[in-house]
Amino acid sequence: MKNKPRILITNDDGVHAPGIRYLWEALHEIADLTIVAPQTEQSATGLSITLRSPLRLEKLNWSNGIVAWSVNGTPSDCVKLGLNIVFNEKPDLIVSGINRGTNAGRNALYSGTVAAAIEGVLHGIPAIAFSCHDYWDTDYTTANKHIPSIVEHVLKHPLPNGTLLNVNFPSKELEQIRGYKMTRQGMAYWTEDLAERFHPAEKHTYYWLGAKLAEFNEIEDCDIAWLKKGYVTAVPIHVNELTDHQHLESRKNVFEALF
Amino acid sequence: MKNKPRILITNDDGVHAPGIRYLWEALHEIADLTIVAPQTEQSATGLSITLRSPLRLEKLNWSNGIVAWSVNGTPSDCVKLGLNIVFNEKPDLIVSGINRGTNAGRNALYSGTVAAAIEGVLHGIPAIAFSCHDYWDTDYTTANKHIPSIVEHVLKHPLPNGTLLNVNFPSKELEQIRGYKMTRQGMAYWTEDLAERFHPAEKHTYYWLGAKLAEFNEIEDCDIAWLKKGYVTAVPIHVNELTDHQHLESRKNVFEALF
Repeated sequence: MKNKPRILITNDDGVHAPGIRYLWEALHEIADLTIVAPQTEQSATGLSITLRSPLRLEKLNWSNGIVAWSVNGTPSDCVKLGLNIVFNEKPDLIVSGINRGTNAGRNALYSGTVAAAIEGVLHGIPAIAFSCHDYWDTDYTTANKHIPSIVEHVLKHPLPNGTLLNVNFPSKELEQIRGYKMTRQGMAYWTEDLAERFHPAEKHTYYWLGAKLAEFNEIEDCDIAWLKKGYVTAVPIHVNELTDHQHLESRKNVFEALF
Repeated sequence: MKNKPRILITNDDGVHAPGIRYLWEALHEIADLTIVAPQTEQSATGLSITLRSPLRLEKLNWSNGIVAWSVNGTPSDCVKLGLNIVFNEKPDLIVSGINRGTNAGRNALYSGTVAAAIEGVLHGIPAIAFSCHDYWDTDYTTANKHIPSIVEHVLKHPLPNGTLLNVNFPSKELEQIRGYKMTRQGMAYWTEDLAERFHPAEKHTYYWLGAKLAEFNEIEDCDIAWLKKGYVTAVPIHVNELTDHQHLESRKNVFEALF
């Protein structure tokens, strides 16, 4: 009998968040899962890593005798400690999520969920990030149902070195999902929505960063647009080289002549 | 007389770090500078933003009557609060640095210095990140000397929407600098270098993440390679769309047929 694929699962909503429990449910029959996830919520921490404070890796009874590892750090920290301490050999895949709230468009840049996948890719391990569009009243059951076939697809059709798959589920119930789209990354993202408050005792102003959707004229074939139409979207995101080649070619000579 | 360009300066080493003082020195004669920088060091925080705790924006006497604003958050938080609270109109440019330690290659993904520039670009403001290769015994004088002409170049030859300039200075004294290279992003990056310790009172193991350089067979025309040869490097980095188009085209049909 062929061994099951070995998968490190993590997230940015914390080891006890509902999303990672749905992820475990979706994959535990088809894969050998190891959970290494943040002790507390780490949303919007991007590819932050913890250099200035000590990290603990704690084994815990996650659910009905299932063991999980928690880390008092970011999703990237979890992947780093998982790969170095928990795994003897590299896992076959890293799966991050299921995130509460969309990581479509340029939200991927801020997302801790996607960052865990980036960290995997930098270590040469294929990685998938799963997110649900809805932040409020998130319904993970649609994602849960579709995740096994998407994971099996990635295991069968490997991602190139340096590329992760960023999957988002639309705000639809299972029977309303219209299909899968592998597509381009859109432009929309959550930008700040500042709220000013006054500290009653310390007598100073402070701010809550908040979030509101910055919308753009999107092309039709992008994750933002397909999600609105009820499709599950998958964007292959590459992180090895982000050079703007067009600008490089057009400005190289002028720039280098400055010296 | 033409007005001076208005520049928001920030960093990830903190508002009192030496690098931002050298940056101010380099630019204060040619531009109208406003400092909005983190209260404490925020190295390797990537594009992290602070959603779960309140942010303060404090005006401080930075040096000889010069005012600066500090934020108890990340470089991205500084840019967000700066643009929303401190500036009435968008600045002409955001300049981040001078960072202590290299942000060449894929370090750019983790860098708080580069993240401040990404945050600017997402707000439609051109941005430059400056970093010195050396983390120990950092000598900012070379950077200081070259920064004015690079900033003036960017103001004269605008960056495309969605692109920032990531500039790194080599580990060389001023007279040893061989030239400027506008080039591609290399592959090398600082990866974890874990150290295990034991807490004497609490009797548990903990870890310091640490950092060691992960090296790759680099192409000759990339920032990592030119820095080693003594050149100042500038990589235009685009953040609007990170789609791996080649993978998308090759797998689109197979993926969509899964549904």
